[in-house]
Amino acid sequence: MQFHLNGFHPGDPRFSDPQDAVVPPPIKRPLPQEVDVLIVGCGPAGLNLAAQLTQFEGIRVAIIDQKDDRLLVGQADGIACRTMEMFQAYGFADQIIQEAYQVNEAAFWKPSEQKPNEIARSSKVQDVADDLSEMPHLIINQARVHDMFLDVMRRSAAKLEPHYQRKLLDLEVDPQGGEYPVTARIERLVNYSQYTQEVETIRAKYVVGCDGARSSVRTAIGKELVGDALNQAWGVMDVLLNTDFPDIRLKSLIHSNNEGNMLIIPREGGYMVRLYIELDKLKENERVARDQMTPEILIAAANRIMQPYTIDVKEVAWWSVYEIGQRITTAFDDSEEGRPARVFLAGDACHTHSPKAGQGLNTSVMDTWNLGWKLAHVLTGRADEKILKTYSDERREYGQALIDFDREFSRMFSAKPKSADNPDGVDPAEFQRYFQLFGEYTAGVSIQYRPSIMVGEGTHQALASGLVVGKRFHSAPVIRHGDAKPVQLGHCHTANGAYRVYAFAGNQTPMSAECGVKALCDYLANDANSPLKKYTPADADPDAVIDLRAVFQQHHHEIERDTLHPVLTPRKGKYGLIDHEKVFCADNRPLSSGGGKNIYDMRGIDKSRGCIVIVRPDQYVADVLPLDDYAGLSRFFDGVLIEA
Amino acid sequence: MQFHLNGFHPGDPRFSDPQDAVVPPPIKRPLPQEVDVLIVGCGPAGLNLAAQLTQFEGIRVAIIDQKDDRLLVGQADGIACRTMEMFQAYGFADQIIQEAYQVNEAAFWKPSEQKPNEIARSSKVQDVADDLSEMPHLIINQARVHDMFLDVMRRSAAKLEPHYQRKLLDLEVDPQGGEYPVTARIERLVNYSQYTQEVETIRAKYVVGCDGARSSVRTAIGKELVGDALNQAWGVMDVLLNTDFPDIRLKSLIHSNNEGNMLIIPREGGYMVRLYIELDKLKENERVARDQMTPEILIAAANRIMQPYTIDVKEVAWWSVYEIGQRITTAFDDSEEGRPARVFLAGDACHTHSPKAGQGLNTSVMDTWNLGWKLAHVLTGRADEKILKTYSDERREYGQALIDFDREFSRMFSAKPKSADNPDGVDPAEFQRYFQLFGEYTAGVSIQYRPSIMVGEGTHQALASGLVVGKRFHSAPVIRHGDAKPVQLGHCHTANGAYRVYAFAGNQTPMSAECGVKALCDYLANDANSPLKKYTPADADPDAVIDLRAVFQQHHHEIERDTLHPVLTPRKGKYGLIDHEKVFCADNRPLSSGGGKNIYDMRGIDKSRGCIVIVRPDQYVADVLPLDDYAGLSRFFDGVLIEA
Repeated sequence: MQFHLNGFHPGDPRFSDPQDAVVPPPIKRPLPQEVDVLIVGCGPAGLNLAAQLTQFEGIRVAIIDQKDDRLLVGQADGIACRTMEMFQAYGFADQIIQEAYQVNEAAFWKPSEQKPNEIARSSKVQDVADDLSEMPHLIINQARVHDMFLDVMRRSAAKLEPHYQRKLLDLEVDPQGGEYPVTARIERLVNYSQYTQEVETIRAKYVVGCDGARSSVRTAIGKELVGDALNQAWGVMDVLLNTDFPDIRLKSLIHSNNEGNMLIIPREGGYMVRLYIELDKLKENERVARDQMTPEILIAAANRIMQPYTIDVKEVAWWSVYEIGQRITTAFDDSEEGRPARVFLAGDACHTHSPKAGQGLNTSVMDTWNLGWKLAHVLTGRADEKILKTYSDERREYGQALIDFDREFSRMFSAKPKSADNPDGVDPAEFQRYFQLFGEYTAGVSIQYRPSIMVGEGTHQALASGLVVGKRFHSAPVIRHGDAKPVQLGHCHTANGAYRVYAFAGNQTPMSAECGVKALCDYLANDANSPLKKYTPADADPDAVIDLRAVFQQHHHEIERDTLHPVLTPRKGKYGLIDHEKVFCADNRPLSSGGGKNIYDMRGIDKSRGCIVIVRPDQYVADVLPLDDYAGLSRFFDGVLIEA
Repeated sequence: MQFHLNGFHPGDPRFSDPQDAVVPPPIKRPLPQEVDVLIVGCGPAGLNLAAQLTQFEGIRVAIIDQKDDRLLVGQADGIACRTMEMFQAYGFADQIIQEAYQVNEAAFWKPSEQKPNEIARSSKVQDVADDLSEMPHLIINQARVHDMFLDVMRRSAAKLEPHYQRKLLDLEVDPQGGEYPVTARIERLVNYSQYTQEVETIRAKYVVGCDGARSSVRTAIGKELVGDALNQAWGVMDVLLNTDFPDIRLKSLIHSNNEGNMLIIPREGGYMVRLYIELDKLKENERVARDQMTPEILIAAANRIMQPYTIDVKEVAWWSVYEIGQRITTAFDDSEEGRPARVFLAGDACHTHSPKAGQGLNTSVMDTWNLGWKLAHVLTGRADEKILKTYSDERREYGQALIDFDREFSRMFSAKPKSADNPDGVDPAEFQRYFQLFGEYTAGVSIQYRPSIMVGEGTHQALASGLVVGKRFHSAPVIRHGDAKPVQLGHCHTANGAYRVYAFAGNQTPMSAECGVKALCDYLANDANSPLKKYTPADADPDAVIDLRAVFQQHHHEIERDTLHPVLTPRKGKYGLIDHEKVFCADNRPLSSGGGKNIYDMRGIDKSRGCIVIVRPDQYVADVLPLDDYAGLSRFFDGVLIEA
């Protein structure tokens, strides 16, 4: 898709008239008096949490923000592969793929050896390694990501819309406060005569602060950001431009000899580009105070850095100066010894870092992707509130790791290039190696949660070496048995809060007496300890809490439907209709027909013994077990679910 | 995507509340008094034409229908690969792919040899041959296709909405009628007190009758459907059901020995199925008159045909009886010797046939896909109205071929299976061979328009043997030079009415003195006969009328942007921004990285000499020429365009 040719306009680029491209703000209305979850902040963390909670019917949510309306311009733009995998669970990955810029290669530029005042290309490298993810690395205005979450919320049964122009004044948590222990006072920033109340009070079971680096929720629970106070300043601008720089449609990392460093990020629509310019590295006499910064100064700096190339900026769609230290909050919730958490923090409210590795939005949405289903399980009575402790345990460690990474990445990015004059500088080749080494990290797929009640020890990891316990389920292609459709197995993981149990069969005849999947199905269907039986409410679909799927090695023509165990053809909904999408076969098609990708080979699954892979609702592998480890399977669910 | 579990609901399945899933009808308003094009009928032919015309700013269109509102249920459901290629040009193919059922295999069932009263599977075959199209064969409610066209219309600059509840009374064409020679009288079917006028008069430059088999437009211009009056009756129903039939999620063609034949088409959402039941083949005593037909009778017939399997229908979402002969209209327009056409017919108004080969919707949209851009070129002054004659020439031949195919397909489908008792019957294996043989035909990709002013003779076909003159441009993967993105070359063909000129380079060094693409670019940029210079209006973007693209054999790293000819980096829009998406390279990646598909090999392009491929706005190959055949290139455009 090409757009923004005649100037940047926010909203859905499919509309010809910019006036129609933006959904109008919701009708002004008072806040509800009581909710299950109050979310403070309509950034990516808050909207993702709201979108996740609206997937559970009956959970009452309010989400507030000080802003007048939805975000339209600026802020983040990098969407990591892992984030796209999450978008897939909501069903809007395809739309993002259609609109976004896809990062295929990165170009590295360094001072020319012949003319040190000019830059020269050092190399071009593939941006996303083969089979890192089935999803691409994309660049798109954060506002469009918000739009997608808002659409999910609006289309849900709750038809949730944010309450804008609301400012949190204070929070009070009463441990003896009964069902709604948190009371929040909220100021209406714009008042109309028909509303007599300027401050509204709302009571909530839980409050989640997604309200950014200056979080009021964090202040209210007495936490603070600690860490490196040494702010680095970056100028950032979204521009429509012409240039003779040859890699303007590639992500380009530019180190100049004496003029500083910059990052070029091509943007959606084919014409727009984001520039990140490191301001601290500008020459002394070219630095200006933040409040005197102008786009013209940034453009001039860019032109000096990228000599002999020049940019001719036609329109500045948005610009800003970031000054951000690497800091992390002392705690991700308000829990104390013996008192479970009632207030949580997520996103920039917990951790701040530089924008250039593109980790801000991606980390923020992963915070609430971790928290959302856990809150929902507690609120719907599926799980005890002890599971909420894992949120802080899992995400705080990752927040710290992110800051460590960002510090090193920033150091290397900001260092002067190594040269005859500067032998202690960073070798651009070394920076490039670092960039590639951390490709998994920046793509978001290297996160590995530690063992806990919801992550196993990895005792049986060898049965599926490529589906790592604690890491996200790494999807691979399979053929769906019922309709012979080539699909990604990981796309079973819709954002509905269910655990997935994959039964990967060994090489025995499917559903024969020797078949381990058949025996597992018998256990799940009949045994008193079957987690399917114990944890599925009587009025729920059989796959509502634990969604069982089977994968076989044989060609799909070798398995007849009438041989499938009934738990693999569950009856659902008001009519008891059979679901035909629970059974898959390895893709045995030749490479020339689009196949050649066998999930057993790709993910190191034991072809003789098969295995069970338990996947959490947030797509992380909870455990890998032998196919006949029924006790282990039941024990896992006994630890995280409550009997229906 | 799974949906319809708890019953069928029309509209966008992404909405939880069915009330929100359907866009409300447009505001009632009077018809305009004068338009460029009046379209009668909001079926797929009419909506596609309207959507196409709204891509041209300034063309005034009205589209009317007798119905109260948009279609919600029933009618066609098969979307051929070729139709998906067209949807791609509008930008909504991805959304259809996400929602639809994908036909991967077809199952053939015949009487069991052991138990002739029962059916047994004869075989399963791949439905779409490898590399037939980059698009899948899909099944989705026709209503959703209408929704997509309506979205395209609504998002356009014209913001076009249909006028519903309008019935065409009569048409009058005055050859001396000046600018608006056609006058139509239209009755408002529902009147409100504020409207005093019950019959509206609208004057148009052109009228297109997309008003179905009983077309009023056809009657008004004195044409009629002729052909086989022997109607075949088919019962059709969309149902939610459970069954023990093993291939219920595959397209299944079932021939029973004595109970008749049926066709099972799995539908979108995972639970719904369409059944086609041949009523004439029911036993004498089971036949009923059409007005006494009920869903219960159809269900009983299905259960008899598919013995030993049974269906348990939980909900009938829609049902109907089709009685359709194979007929075609005597002419596709009202032209006479010396008098150009002012009124056109398209879709079922021109040709009717059985629904079972899934050709109705697909042929109808291809009619107006052929007509739309031609009308737009005439109305915007790009072309002389002589080009309109090619519509009837091209489509009438295809309409006749369709009817011939349908007659043979129907005969084979309806014949009794060959058996000991019935040695003259059709061998199911023969039927299957026929089905596969005609896979290209039913996918819509075998259409080949004959030589005309806009289709060449194929003199130089050998330069690109797989891009057949007169057939649709067969897409293949390439790497886009500017951003290293793997894309389908055919997806350059957006529905904007531009001709595409592909310059496939030979194996000379790109843009060197020997490079034929460079020489062609020089000609196009500088020569007085250059069609780019002659036919592009001064105020239009350089690619608005003729969109030049180049493809090279070398790896994209071997071509630097500053070597590209300026006509390949055109400046567009109000800022003169450079378009970086005009140059492509063959995909030289290994199979293991998703590559292995070189467009030169796939489409038989001469690697030594290269070639020019001219593609019409409707994606059909107009001609293949030597790279240095500048005269041939200019001659082609001199025949179809008017100097700007």
